[in-house]
Parts: sequence; C-alpha cells; structure tokens
Amino acid sequence: MTLPELHVSQWFNTDKNITLASLLGKVIVVEAFQMLCPGCVLHGIPLAQKVAAAFPKEKVAVLGLHTVFEHHDAMTPVSLKAFLHEYRITFPVGVDAPGEGPMPKTMQAFQMRGTPSMLIFDKSGSLRAHHFGDVSELLLGAEIATLLGQERETSLTASDVSIQPGCGEDGCTI
Amino acid sequence: MTLPELHVSQWFNTDKNITLASLLGKVIVVEAFQMLCPGCVLHGIPLAQKVAAAFPKEKVAVLGLHTVFEHHDAMTPVSLKAFLHEYRITFPVGVDAPGEGPMPKTMQAFQMRGTPSMLIFDKSGSLRAHHFGDVSELLLGAEIATLLGQERETSLTASDVSIQPGCGEDGCTI
Amino acid sequence: MTLPELHVSQWFNTDKNITLASLLGKVIVVEAFQMLCPGCVLHGIPLAQKVAAAFPKEKVAVLGLHTVFEHHDAMTPVSLKAFLHEYRITFPVGVDAPGEGPMPKTMQAFQMRGTPSMLIFDKSGSLRAHHFGDVSELLLGAEIATLLGQERETSLTASDVSIQPGCGEDGCTI
Amino acid sequence: MTLPELHVSQWFNTDKNITLASLLGKVIVVEAFQMLCPGCVLHGIPLAQKVAAAFPKEKVAVLGLHTVFEHHDAMTPVSLKAFLHEYRITFPVGVDAPGEGPMPKTMQAFQMRGTPSMLIFDKSGSLRAHHFGDVSELLLGAEIATLLGQERETSLTASDVSIQPGCGEDGCTI
Repeated sequence: MTLPELHVSQWFNTDKNITLASLLGKVIVVEAFQMLCPGCVLHGIPLAQKVAAAFPKEKVAVLGLHTVFEHHDAMTPVSLKAFLHEYRITFPVGVDAPGEGPMPKTMQAFQMRGTPSMLIFDKSGSLRAHHFGDVSELLLGAEIATLLGQERETSLTASDVSIQPGCGEDGCTI
Repeated sequence: MTLPELHVSQWFNTDKNITLASLLGKVIVVEAFQMLCPGCVLHGIPLAQKVAAAFPKEKVAVLGLHTVFEHHDAMTPVSLKAFLHEYRITFPVGVDAPGEGPMPKTMQAFQMRGTPSMLIFDKSGSLRAHHFGDVSELLLGAEIATLLGQERETSLTASDVSIQPGCGEDGCTI
Repeated sequence: MTLPELHVSQWFNTDKNITLASLLGKVIVVEAFQMLCPGCVLHGIPLAQKVAAAFPKEKVAVLGLHTVFEHHDAMTPVSLKAFLHEYRITFPVGVDAPGEGPMPKTMQAFQMRGTPSMLIFDKSGSLRAHHFGDVSELLLGAEIATLLGQERETSLTASDVSIQPGCGEDGCTI
Repeated sequence: MTLPELHVSQWFNTDKNITLASLLGKVIVVEAFQMLCPGCVLHGIPLAQKVAAAFPKEKVAVLGLHTVFEHHDAMTPVSLKAFLHEYRITFPVGVDAPGEGPMPKTMQAFQMRGTPSMLIFDKSGSLRAHHFGDVSELLLGAEIATLLGQERETSLTASDVSIQPGCGEDGCTI
C-alpha cells in the first residue's frame, strides 16, 4: 500500500520540506484552511493551535495546509505570510500546490469538501479521520489519544457537519 | 484494595441508588458542583453535559454530585431539584451526604479542594484523574479515550488550575 | 396621573426601602429575574451589571427585582441572598411581593411576560421601555442616553424577542 | 472652521465617491481597520456591523476605512475585496490613500494610534469621538443616541484602551 502524501509548493514556519513520511511514529494533525475563510479563522485554526499546545510535539505533529480554492489572487503566499504573523500561528504551514483546476493538489487528492478540513494520520501514516467544518474538542481529543495508544490499523472514520455552499461562519464549501 | 465509593443521601434523575461498584466496566465521570457556584454553572456543568452527549452511555457514565460546603440552607435538595429542571440536567445527580463539618462526606473522602471538581474512574473503579477548576476539553477527551482503551492500572494523575479563595467565575474554593 | 411603583417585600444590598418615587431625577433600569432562570444568569443579570458599571450612579439607577413565578420554595430569600453573594451582584435587589396567584405583585402590575424582563423609567418616573428576553446592548445604551437627554414624555416603547414557553437559555416564560 | 475629510483612493460596496460632507445631517461612524488585524476581525468589524444593523441608514451612516500601515503588499485592494465578500461586509469601505510614510493619509490626519479605531462624527461633520481598541457597546449606543439628539457642538471626547505594541487579539498598534 502506498501511503498518502502532501503536495506543498512552499513552507512557512520551518526550514525543511516536511513530508508525512518524515513524521512517521507521530500522530499527525493537518489543518486545511484558507486565510480568508471566516470559519477557519474563528474555529479551525484556534482548534489546531489548541492541539499543538495540549499534546507534546514529539507525539503529535500539527501542520497547517493553505488549500486555496477560490479568490486565488487574494490569498497569495505574500498575504499568507502576514496572516501567519498577525494570528501568531507558529506550527509549520504549507501552501497546497496548484492543481489543474481551481482546487489545489492535496485538497483534490484527499477529496476535501471545503475549508476548514482536518485530516488525522496515525503513527504509520494512514489517514484515520477526515473532518469538515466544526469539530468537537472532546471527540478530537479522544481520537488523538486513541491513535496515540494504537499501532497500525486501517479503518477510516469520517465525521462532518453539513455546511451550506459558499462561505459561512462555519466554513467554506466548494 | 478497597475501591472508593460515593456517599449520597438522595438521588435525582434516577430511581435507583447508584454506586461506583454498580458501574464497573464503564469509565465514570463525576462532576462535583454547587448549584450557586458560577464556575460550575458556566463551565463545569456544561462540560459534563458535553461528555454525556459525546460518549455512548454504555461506555461512559456521567454523574453529578452536589457537594455543598457553604450556604447550606440556600442550596437544599428542594432548590437543587428546580435547578436541575431549569438547566435541563438529565444525568443522575446525587446529594453528597452531610459530613461532620461544613464539607460533605464524599468531598472530604476524595479531598476535593472546591467546586467544580471532576473525578474520573477507570473501568475497574480506580480513581484515575482529579481535576479542579477549568478543564481542557481536548485533554479530557484524550483522558476518557485512554481509559476506554485500557484495563486496570493504578496511577493517579491530577491537573488543577489555581483558583483564588472564595467564588469566582472559575470556581469556588474552600 | 399616578406613577407606577414597585411592590417589594424585602430588599438586599441596601438598608433603605427603595421606591421609584425616591429615585425621581434619575433614569431607572429595573432588571426582573429569577435566580434559577438560565437566561437571567447568562444574559439578563450580566447586562444589568454592565449598565451599572457604564453609567454614573447619580444619573442611572440599576435595581434588581426577584420576580419568582414558579418553583417558589426553591427560590426563597435565603437562597437569593447566597446567589447575590456568589454572583457578586452589588446593586439593590428587591423581592417582588407575593401576589394572589403564582405571579408576584409587581410582575403582574407591569404585565411582564416572563424573565428576564427589563423596565426602564425616565427621570419623571414614567415607564418608557419594557423588554423581554435578549436585549441589544447598542440599543439599550441608546435608549438610556435618550432618556438622560430628555425631560418628561409619555410614550411607551416595547421590544421583545419571542421565547418558547418554559425556560430556555434566553429566558423563562409564564 | 474647515471640516475634516476622508482621503480615499478606492471605494468598495458603493458606486459613488463618498465624502463626509455628502453625509451631513447623519451621524457618521467610521470603522478604521486592517483586514489581517485579529482585533479588527474579532471585535471591530462585528461591532460596526451591529451599528449598521441597529440604527436606521437615514440617521446613522457606517463606513469602513482600510487603514493599512504594515504588511502593505499583503493587504492590497484585491485581497480586501475578497475579505469583504467572505466576511459579508456590506457597508461602504474605502481604501485609505497612501501617505508619505507607511501610514496612510486619513489615518495620519486623524492621528490614529492603530487598528481598530472608530471615529464618530456628528450631524454637522465634526469629530465627536475617537476610540481605539475595544469599545463598550452600551456606551457606543449612548454616544450615537446623544449625537442623534443633538445639533452642532464642538467638544471632542476620546476613550481608549491601552494596547501593547504590535498586533494582539484587541488590535494592532503603530
């Protein structure tokens, strides 16, 4: 089985090119967001920051992924850099590589439905959860702890909230 | 080893006398509160309600414990009954049995420092966490999931926030 | 024209018997609440506390009125006293005098629809606004400022939110 | 006396070039913000939206002013346009015209200390309040109502909160 991988054109908050493969052995939480998506700013990113603060870095890796699928010229890497600075986001954030359509590559590969989306990979690099929209902190904590206690498994769980098309306080959909 | 037990003089939201022993096999979350403690009303009880909603009843039992250590004549069972109705608290709530001083029996037996306090017991009935004041939802979720995945163990972890004496928004201390 | 008056059986946070007549010359804001009404605890009382903090006492008088219309034995003056202490309510609070039915006298005289209700009297003692449920802070501030700038007038404005019967987060209805 | 005026290089959400002079007869509320300032996004802009919703358009005019004084290439009009769309800001927003230094012209003319700042002009076009940082809704409502009830006056009141240099949740300072 081939493990999934991120497609990133540029990283912020890190000197290295980060891959999921390089993080094997840790639970990996990927927060996919757009800097002008209100639901990302109000809920998704603060939650990712809480995860980064609550769990030790050597056990849980938190990554941001800037998955721009609309208003591309409004959310360039130059704007993203200032956004990360002003919102004090310190975990590594990758720019999802441009795809053939409006949706960037990683977003398409994982069939994300919009932003914010959260992907959780287990210690062996398998995708174990894929959330879209608002996420329960209690259940997210439970999910991460379960993966921290486990070795390789293969099932994929998914939980979603239904979100109207367009951008609302909860998120942006394609 | 003798397992700990609750000392309850009266139960609400249940017809039975509930004991920790009767819940063996489940993770048990006990929310100790006072109905006139602002930190309990604003944070502790809503969190217990979220736990009850997030985890299946057959795996995680949520109990309330009315641990009145001040203003005893203001927080009688008659007032508690109306409080539970108005705040739509549906999990079983026991009245902590009067002790010899102002502090009730269970509160004293577990050396609680004030309200809200949260006790978490594993499936074999051992106390595994004892929180006072505000609790991180992420870490609480992780704690419950860890206990759901485990069999008997013996360590006790404790996390606290420091709270000023008296009642504040965060809680009431002795 | 006879000015309206409060019917109070007992006062807290003051040594005097307060009447609307004794406050002529000030704008008077009366917050009618029940201590076990979630909407009062979460919204109504904090708003009254903000009014008391924002406007000078010599211009705007804030009073609480405990208008118990249900669970009477759960919300006695003994319980109210502890409630005021724990929630740090420092403005004068009167107990609405018992009426002939479940509804107390002042509540009935002003035809309040439930709790929280807010009555606003102008400097000449006339009722000028009667709110039920959630109140916009911006518009409340505007209303108070308008009355501070005015002399006697006679119209009554009313704004309400619709609330389901029973107690919800927004309030309790009769 | 010369009335103050805005210096705007480009307007959004309107076809016309708006001037303070063209709004004489209305109370004018100007929300000065930067699209990547967290305090603006979390507090300043939502408050301006509440003002626009609470007061009738023919009496109170709400304007936004994009006063970029840092990260200029990250907050261009192209990015602002998408921001206004995603955050559903519908009142007219002007881009503060570039100045000689990093601070734009209107920001400099009114000696603003950072973002969010709120300027309030009376019906005769005189600046009557200048707030920086968090603003009390109650007092803002009172201020607007007072100006709605008044004719020409000349005093200027100012209220501020102290904010650390740089950008925090409350705002960005120069």
